Amino acid sequence: MNAEEIFRNIKRKKSFLCVGLDTDYKKIPRLLLHKEYPVFEFNKRIIDATHEFAVAYKPNLAFYEMLGAAGHMSLEMTVSYIRENYPDLFLIADAKRGDIGNTSLMYAHAFFKTLDFDAITLSPYMGYDSISPFLEAGGKWVILLALTSNEGSKDFQQLQLKDGKQLFEKVISTSAEWGNVNNTMYVIGATKAKALGRIRKLIPEHFLLVPGVGSQGGSLEEVAQYGMNDRCGLLVNASRSIIYADVTNKFEDAAREEASRLQAQMEEILLTRRLI
Amino acid sequence: MNAEEIFRNIKRKKSFLCVGLDTDYKKIPRLLLHKEYPVFEFNKRIIDATHEFAVAYKPNLAFYEMLGAAGHMSLEMTVSYIRENYPDLFLIADAKRGDIGNTSLMYAHAFFKTLDFDAITLSPYMGYDSISPFLEAGGKWVILLALTSNEGSKDFQQLQLKDGKQLFEKVISTSAEWGNVNNTMYVIGATKAKALGRIRKLIPEHFLLVPGVGSQGGSLEEVAQYGMNDRCGLLVNASRSIIYADVTNKFEDAAREEASRLQAQMEEILLTRRLI
Repeated sequence: MNAEEIFRNIKRKKSFLCVGLDTDYKKIPRLLLHKEYPVFEFNKRIIDATHEFAVAYKPNLAFYEMLGAAGHMSLEMTVSYIRENYPDLFLIADAKRGDIGNTSLMYAHAFFKTLDFDAITLSPYMGYDSISPFLEAGGKWVILLALTSNEGSKDFQQLQLKDGKQLFEKVISTSAEWGNVNNTMYVIGATKAKALGRIRKLIPEHFLLVPGVGSQGGSLEEVAQYGMNDRCGLLVNASRSIIYADVTNKFEDAAREEASRLQAQMEEILLTRRLI
Repeated sequence: MNAEEIFRNIKRKKSFLCVGLDTDYKKIPRLLLHKEYPVFEFNKRIIDATHEFAVAYKPNLAFYEMLGAAGHMSLEMTVSYIRENYPDLFLIADAKRGDIGNTSLMYAHAFFKTLDFDAITLSPYMGYDSISPFLEAGGKWVILLALTSNEGSKDFQQLQLKDGKQLFEKVISTSAEWGNVNNTMYVIGATKAKALGRIRKLIPEHFLLVPGVGSQGGSLEEVAQYGMNDRCGLLVNASRSIIYADVTNKFEDAAREEASRLQAQMEEILLTRRLI
């Protein structure tokens, strides 16, 4: 899927919502716990309830890895389920990997072949040769951590470099040369909406993956104001606020309602900006 | 295992060798391919052949993840095999994770509880709250990427900051305050041996995990010259040069011979420095 196809899906669905599948075994409603793969069952129902309001899904690998082999099965089944039933969805592995070249090649295989993801989140710290094996996979995306939503983003990402830039700006400007607008996105936390203006000057055309709306407190309005471009250029992620909107047997209705609410806000924004 | 216990094992085995289990399915000798879990079988034999020369083992997660659920089983079995048969070995998950707090908590669970590793490699890019959940696990170690052995370490790790330091130095000095010498190590590539002198001034007492000796061309002599402290302070990793020393049916003998050769060099160094 290239950037134009992502934008086409955004226009068709009037939404730039990404649903984060941070599926915590402990928060799954009881009625699913007797299933062989409760995490998959939960995901399946969340996806069925929310797919019409979203253009992307983003399983967070940590939540699957903590369950060992059973978690891995649930992840595989989730990916297959989306591929078979909703082939227009963009599928992001929130894995935050990054290693030396020959190891990154193995990770690219793990996420783009063993599992059929469209994209993977990566940490830029190890530089070009840690990222290039993913870019060379062809038709797939890397989503580089740039300025994240958490408190710790101050520790290193926001450091001032000798040339006056902040580290995250250097990460963006350097790595934008490695790939192109059809294979590279950046993670920018919604709590950092005002930095989006500066970031848009560096990379006017790239898509940004923006987590932190919802439970982490970021504002959708501000993100759109500072970060949107003429192809939308945003995938805004909400995880906990959707999937745990209700933790009783009514979780599907509640998730649907919250996804629908966010989609309606997004539609409004897209209309105002004359993108739909 | 605390730093003193690691040093005790180093003295007893006259070795500071870590064996990297970057087990590539395609390089496993044919005679193992009919087994249900060839990667585990290979690891088991490598461990049996080399354990007396090593103090640590380091499975590289990418190589297991690319095999999906079967890879995860092989990893679990490898960890269990070491725990049951060689309880004195220090077990490192080379996973290079790092995410916002609630996600890092899940990764800590995945690697310290679901899998019983002693330590995990982490990327520092997301800052304090991405690392602290691992430090809070208690009795476990974080091993932070600082200055890696690959070409791409130039891109960001070696950038000059406004205050004159390089980014990797700032990563070290900042994060050294988060934990202590009994729960924090750093990854410093063997190809960067001369930077070790500067690093030792920042953190005289921390253990360093040094990959890049062997296939990547780093020198053990130089690493020891610039990086060793009075408790050794080094775990030097070799992966491919040991586990693929021979890819025929004689792989165990060849691996043993290469591990023994490295151990002999290490013994010499430890003797010269009067640490044993």
